[in-house]
Amino acid sequence: MTYCVGVLLDDGIVLASDSRTHAGVDDVASFCKMTVFERAGDRVITLLSSGNLAGTQAIVSLLQQRGDARAEAATAPNLWTARTMFDVAMLVTDATRDIEGRDRESLERSALRFDASFIIGGQIKGEPMRLFRTFAEGNFIEAHRETSFFQTGEAKYGKPIIDRVITPSTSLADATKCVLVSFDSTMRSNLSVGMPIDLVCYARDTLAVKMRRRFEQGDVYFTTLSKEWGEGVREVFKHLPALVW
Amino acid sequence: MTYCVGVLLDDGIVLASDSRTHAGVDDVASFCKMTVFERAGDRVITLLSSGNLAGTQAIVSLLQQRGDARAEAATAPNLWTARTMFDVAMLVTDATRDIEGRDRESLERSALRFDASFIIGGQIKGEPMRLFRTFAEGNFIEAHRETSFFQTGEAKYGKPIIDRVITPSTSLADATKCVLVSFDSTMRSNLSVGMPIDLVCYARDTLAVKMRRRFEQGDVYFTTLSKEWGEGVREVFKHLPALVW
Repeated sequence: MTYCVGVLLDDGIVLASDSRTHAGVDDVASFCKMTVFERAGDRVITLLSSGNLAGTQAIVSLLQQRGDARAEAATAPNLWTARTMFDVAMLVTDATRDIEGRDRESLERSALRFDASFIIGGQIKGEPMRLFRTFAEGNFIEAHRETSFFQTGEAKYGKPIIDRVITPSTSLADATKCVLVSFDSTMRSNLSVGMPIDLVCYARDTLAVKMRRRFEQGDVYFTTLSKEWGEGVREVFKHLPALVW
Repeated sequence: MTYCVGVLLDDGIVLASDSRTHAGVDDVASFCKMTVFERAGDRVITLLSSGNLAGTQAIVSLLQQRGDARAEAATAPNLWTARTMFDVAMLVTDATRDIEGRDRESLERSALRFDASFIIGGQIKGEPMRLFRTFAEGNFIEAHRETSFFQTGEAKYGKPIIDRVITPSTSLADATKCVLVSFDSTMRSNLSVGMPIDLVCYARDTLAVKMRRRFEQGDVYFTTLSKEWGEGVREVFKHLPALVW
């Protein structure tokens, strides 16, 4: 399974993904699910992928190849030439449909369903930051102030803390903490989500990735955060009033 | 949807269920999902039902009717004559299969799937307390010390707090608080789970229900718990160390 989160704030965007993939419990592996397209001063586009790895990897490779300056096709619209983040979402979902069209019949013969979706966050020069969530069918939705975050994969365990803490005015530092706590809760309750966690914290209008971090198993900051959160929560719990029957 | 929790502790069993049912978002209703079979001094059996309401109601009615002393069938094994909680789980799942057998064909014609499962907790005189979770297929599992709780329905939102707090030696008072906090987290993040919440807190070897409570919308204790938990969690969060980039 997977857990990915993207949060759109007034001050920037926080995006994070786990790395666990599995084809049955006896075939567990680690793959980075985050892809960053960055041209400093011009654009930062981050993709978090969920679903079947064969599908998401093919889509990302197709997007990279279509944007490769050496390729003939690079004259066609691609992630480096897209004018807006909306156009980026269109290109990602066009690629999704291309791979879906290629794989569907073969998958159906094995009673499998094409499954690939993305959280896309970023900013292009002269444009506002935007955050999208795409579906395997190739349609997509955009975050707005009322719902300023998207989760994919094993989203439920880590949703309560995000619901409680995050609003558009939350600082990047707090949103980063919150997203990591959300991952901690998810990983404690579900083995199919696992470290390393990849995290990008993009500050508005910087048009460059200045804060990117991979949290490996045993990471000192993550371990401290997890410990202090766990202890703090149990302490709050201890002081809650007991029910009088 | 539904949210039900049963927790088996050294000191007793805590069982709770929400009351929301819906057939699409435009057909939301409230039904009690908890059924208690109690004969003081002899047995306390609590059922929490999940799944399609038509199915679970029919199963519960069948169990009640089979145990009705006026019924001819009352000479057959029933919940009032079962010798062990294992036999109770067998009777509940026998009834599940009877209703499944009656409904399956008609449901399949409408592309619907029979869906009814139960959390069963209780104690019969001279026997230990036991906690089971049944499946729509009529098989079931039993809680043990390593996994001392079961959840059904929208289980994921409220699992992290239970994972963090509950062990077999947790007190009944703490487990009650924890289950209610778990409901609070679930209801905040998912509209398909809703009040009132029915809760039974059974103390070992009492063979009677002395602590049963229904929490309606606006319940003073639940509101206080929810508020103090939310404030406490946000306070803990505020004091977590920020990531240094």
